[in-house]
Amino acid sequence: MKLSLGADDVALQQRATPQLTPGHALVRVTAVGLCGSDVHAIKAHPGYEWVRTPVTLGHEITGVVTDVAEGAGSVPVGSHVGVISMDGCRVCDLCAAGRRPLCAKRTVIGLSHHGGAAEYVSVRTDNLVLLPTELSWQHAVLLEPCSVAVHAVTRTPLPASGRVIVSGAGPVGMLTAFAARARGADVTVVGVEQDEAVRLPLMRECGFGTRTVVPDEPVDTWIEASGSVAALAAAVCGLRAGGDLTAVGMYDRLASMDGSRLVRREITVRGSYGSVHADYRTALDLLSTAVVPADRMVFPFALDEWAAALEAIAHGTAIKAALRP
Amino acid sequence: MKLSLGADDVALQQRATPQLTPGHALVRVTAVGLCGSDVHAIKAHPGYEWVRTPVTLGHEITGVVTDVAEGAGSVPVGSHVGVISMDGCRVCDLCAAGRRPLCAKRTVIGLSHHGGAAEYVSVRTDNLVLLPTELSWQHAVLLEPCSVAVHAVTRTPLPASGRVIVSGAGPVGMLTAFAARARGADVTVVGVEQDEAVRLPLMRECGFGTRTVVPDEPVDTWIEASGSVAALAAAVCGLRAGGDLTAVGMYDRLASMDGSRLVRREITVRGSYGSVHADYRTALDLLSTAVVPADRMVFPFALDEWAAALEAIAHGTAIKAALRP
Amino acid sequence: MKLSLGADDVALQQRATPQLTPGHALVRVTAVGLCGSDVHAIKAHPGYEWVRTPVTLGHEITGVVTDVAEGAGSVPVGSHVGVISMDGCRVCDLCAAGRRPLCAKRTVIGLSHHGGAAEYVSVRTDNLVLLPTELSWQHAVLLEPCSVAVHAVTRTPLPASGRVIVSGAGPVGMLTAFAARARGADVTVVGVEQDEAVRLPLMRECGFGTRTVVPDEPVDTWIEASGSVAALAAAVCGLRAGGDLTAVGMYDRLASMDGSRLVRREITVRGSYGSVHADYRTALDLLSTAVVPADRMVFPFALDEWAAALEAIAHGTAIKAALRP
Amino acid sequence: MKLSLGADDVALQQRATPQLTPGHALVRVTAVGLCGSDVHAIKAHPGYEWVRTPVTLGHEITGVVTDVAEGAGSVPVGSHVGVISMDGCRVCDLCAAGRRPLCAKRTVIGLSHHGGAAEYVSVRTDNLVLLPTELSWQHAVLLEPCSVAVHAVTRTPLPASGRVIVSGAGPVGMLTAFAARARGADVTVVGVEQDEAVRLPLMRECGFGTRTVVPDEPVDTWIEASGSVAALAAAVCGLRAGGDLTAVGMYDRLASMDGSRLVRREITVRGSYGSVHADYRTALDLLSTAVVPADRMVFPFALDEWAAALEAIAHGTAIKAALRP
Repeated sequence: MKLSLGADDVALQQRATPQLTPGHALVRVTAVGLCGSDVHAIKAHPGYEWVRTPVTLGHEITGVVTDVAEGAGSVPVGSHVGVISMDGCRVCDLCAAGRRPLCAKRTVIGLSHHGGAAEYVSVRTDNLVLLPTELSWQHAVLLEPCSVAVHAVTRTPLPASGRVIVSGAGPVGMLTAFAARARGADVTVVGVEQDEAVRLPLMRECGFGTRTVVPDEPVDTWIEASGSVAALAAAVCGLRAGGDLTAVGMYDRLASMDGSRLVRREITVRGSYGSVHADYRTALDLLSTAVVPADRMVFPFALDEWAAALEAIAHGTAIKAALRP
Repeated sequence: MKLSLGADDVALQQRATPQLTPGHALVRVTAVGLCGSDVHAIKAHPGYEWVRTPVTLGHEITGVVTDVAEGAGSVPVGSHVGVISMDGCRVCDLCAAGRRPLCAKRTVIGLSHHGGAAEYVSVRTDNLVLLPTELSWQHAVLLEPCSVAVHAVTRTPLPASGRVIVSGAGPVGMLTAFAARARGADVTVVGVEQDEAVRLPLMRECGFGTRTVVPDEPVDTWIEASGSVAALAAAVCGLRAGGDLTAVGMYDRLASMDGSRLVRREITVRGSYGSVHADYRTALDLLSTAVVPADRMVFPFALDEWAAALEAIAHGTAIKAALRP
Repeated sequence: MKLSLGADDVALQQRATPQLTPGHALVRVTAVGLCGSDVHAIKAHPGYEWVRTPVTLGHEITGVVTDVAEGAGSVPVGSHVGVISMDGCRVCDLCAAGRRPLCAKRTVIGLSHHGGAAEYVSVRTDNLVLLPTELSWQHAVLLEPCSVAVHAVTRTPLPASGRVIVSGAGPVGMLTAFAARARGADVTVVGVEQDEAVRLPLMRECGFGTRTVVPDEPVDTWIEASGSVAALAAAVCGLRAGGDLTAVGMYDRLASMDGSRLVRREITVRGSYGSVHADYRTALDLLSTAVVPADRMVFPFALDEWAAALEAIAHGTAIKAALRP
Repeated sequence: MKLSLGADDVALQQRATPQLTPGHALVRVTAVGLCGSDVHAIKAHPGYEWVRTPVTLGHEITGVVTDVAEGAGSVPVGSHVGVISMDGCRVCDLCAAGRRPLCAKRTVIGLSHHGGAAEYVSVRTDNLVLLPTELSWQHAVLLEPCSVAVHAVTRTPLPASGRVIVSGAGPVGMLTAFAARARGADVTVVGVEQDEAVRLPLMRECGFGTRTVVPDEPVDTWIEASGSVAALAAAVCGLRAGGDLTAVGMYDRLASMDGSRLVRREITVRGSYGSVHADYRTALDLLSTAVVPADRMVFPFALDEWAAALEAIAHGTAIKAALRP
């Protein structure tokens, strides 16, 4: 079975096990996370015209290798793996510099070609990340969003003071808070009122400061992971002179930016998109320490419960919904 | 005489030669440039509430030292000097790091306290920049805006390709083009139609590429010096993935920013404000090479022609108007 | 009384309370740390020719303000303070950029002019750091060396992996380990055999890894704080390709460096000297969290026990010796 | 014919045209530069144990594509090409970040596997750089060393003052001077006495400053390309506080480094090794402008004149010797 996105609909369909092609491995999927981009793709939101339907969804994949094409490198059958979700042309300057998510021909498994919302998925072996077998499936399925969080933190010059605001209490925001704390930051997570139901209390339990209004005191560093243009504007206003803002959300409308303030305070705003190989390794380190409460963040659904899973993330009753084919 | 900005008006007034105060030198003003901020201050535009009237205008100052307070350092009487226009509290972290324009108590001579639109001005000796006597007064009066241009270029990581767009063909835009070229950049200046009258032809004569529409090809690096929010938005759209945008204008309304594009392309936007000591030294090097056509950029007016001077810059008939008290 | 270093000797001498001079405050000294540079100065080691004898020693100063010159700013009498030990000409480019320790005219209190190994010391008020009264004197007296450690860590790009080697288990090495851990690093301290007596066990107790031989696995980042040229050479050999080495020791002989290895592995070696204003603030944050076991690192001596104090640091029986005038 | 390096000797040997293998193109060699590493390899100098004999020498290759393996990408037969000389495992973190020369499994064509000192060479198509047909063969054969020079300059933060010393007047030193000037630097080339015969006069003709003794005035930035440990030591002593030194030579003995000076002046020393994809593109831009006097730098030899060619570079009678099979 596979969760297939067509031109107009999304539906569970029969699928034969994929053929093994050169350079690829076959992965039996243990779990696949659903994410905001899946929702955007399903709803054909502006900015997602590049999705190539029909396509099997699923880009937050973990599973077990069942077969490897001859000559495709030394991944042992039976390995637990995560999947690097983005690829590029591997030839252009940006790819050559290791920045494949910026490639003009960038692809995303599960959106550009068949992904992991199925029993089996075919993956280029050099896009596999070997996982220790003792890593729980809940931690494993967070590898991709965690790598995105790590990428955002790595791109951000953390201040000597250590104080960092993360706005957004979704999975990427939460994981960004953990990734920044692992780099020594003293993180406050800013959410909205409804995040007080589950997410902010969970973050407080994990030792983070939380707020539902922006801070009174200007801060040096802000990572915006909510995807709200209001949060983006608040960040520009909430930064000290010389401050840094990294945006890792997707914004469904144009942001209003106070250009003069940005100039007068010499604020730097940078985008952070996806993640690169090294980020997966750092994310794995982070998840392996087990401080991330993956079992309380990830909610399992069977493959045929996909509609309920999408509803759960839409309504925020699940922090991260994962299909387990 | 002095050009004084009051609560409601601007007018030429009598003024006694300022007293010599500790730490200061007295400078007989040779020329003082008028700039956009003077116009904003006179019109009490939003964002200029910090101007402290009544104040003698003039922050782009060059002149000759006529007296130095005892113990105020070794500036010889008779020295030709430029003036560092911004100062800070000299105690806070930002000042300690040499970033006085970002100090919460930042002052600007000629806006926060009496400036150089007068026969004499009193200046802290450690805000004087010694000029070679062979530097023309037109070059000398461009020192302050040139330091602002140098600051913007210094804050911008120039690409290996060398290709840089500068939008804005005012004095700061023009000087930014020269400053970037001095760092090896291959600069194209983007202006508006009316810049084709004088400014863009002059830049072409100096060897720069020019355009009145944004480039077709995305570029790595863009310095926005026009103060137009449309140019700011065009820059975000005109940058390659991984590109850099430095804003050095003042924007009279909120800019619309495509946050998702900024994220997906990992674009960096940074503000650049004013200039610091080292920038003046670099600016002096640049002006000393004489490639900047200062005599064609600077238009002299007598002190009592101040209204005509303001009109000339408002109508663009002068690139830079300078009062010569 | 004061501990005075003359041309040929060091001795306790009578001293009148210093006069209050403009811009200065008078500080009653609570404690003053002795450091390796004091020993080098006393022994007139090469590289210390700039010390201006006769001079009252002492540059790691903490105390209480007893008087403030008129107009010297708003430091309340009774404030607990630390002292920024280095100053510069405050005019050159390096000073203007906030890098006073690099100024060609750099001074160090207690070596260039009278320091804190005395009941009272006169300090420029803008070189005072206000301390919370609840900070113990042992933590307070570590402020200066801690700022040096913070400076070294701030100059070092910490790796995403977090793994950092600090070589040297003296006070600066130990504080560097704490400062790096505060930025998220997973620090291993490398000492020599005799550090197993007290220092390395104390660091293990505080949760650090320790070694007395260099690591088998190459690492990304190494901060060398031992002052041993052998450690410097070992660091170049112990770094991964693309690795970073920061040196914060003083080396009494020329280091042998494998230049080809440095080239082939694109290793970066940088010096870190002293500290700047912002580092003191960060150091204060670090010391205020009380994780630094200052009470077990600092050993108090009376002013007239100075010889015993010097002996204690020479023999390593004290980690940091502090005179309490 | 091919110039083959065996275990004990180097000799011209017969060779069949290489077979076309998957992913590769066949290139008819127009010219192949000889370089210091070829000499080191032939003499089996320490540091070159990784060379795999027997091997056809030649890693500075230019030629014309005569055949392309099916599915190996869209390089048209007949294309003029240069060759990216270094490759890596393409899987490790350093490769993924685009830093293949640092890969633990790094290979160099013509040293690790058969190179271009032959009529034909087989090259992975993704290591080809398309050249404009109007580029002279002398410019084309400088592409590889020029990319090495570009890499060194790109890794070096150029100072606002623009003043840069390049020590070493060999091909890489000369090309480094051109590459730095293209980034706005005001370059002085420091050579030895014998460079006054040809190289330094040629550089003066091209507008560079030259010296045969180190500068009196300290400088901000120094790129050491001579491979002399004395030059490396002179650079550390000749830098201003806060200065930058990039080493791009290979050093046949240990360098003596004044560690305390490096610390006290916060000097940064970094290695630069080989070059990456983007550097080739920048190098091509640089060579295409034709300011590099390639026809006076490159001296042609027939393939069977290889011994004379090696002698010519050993004695410095040729700046760069190129074999033309």
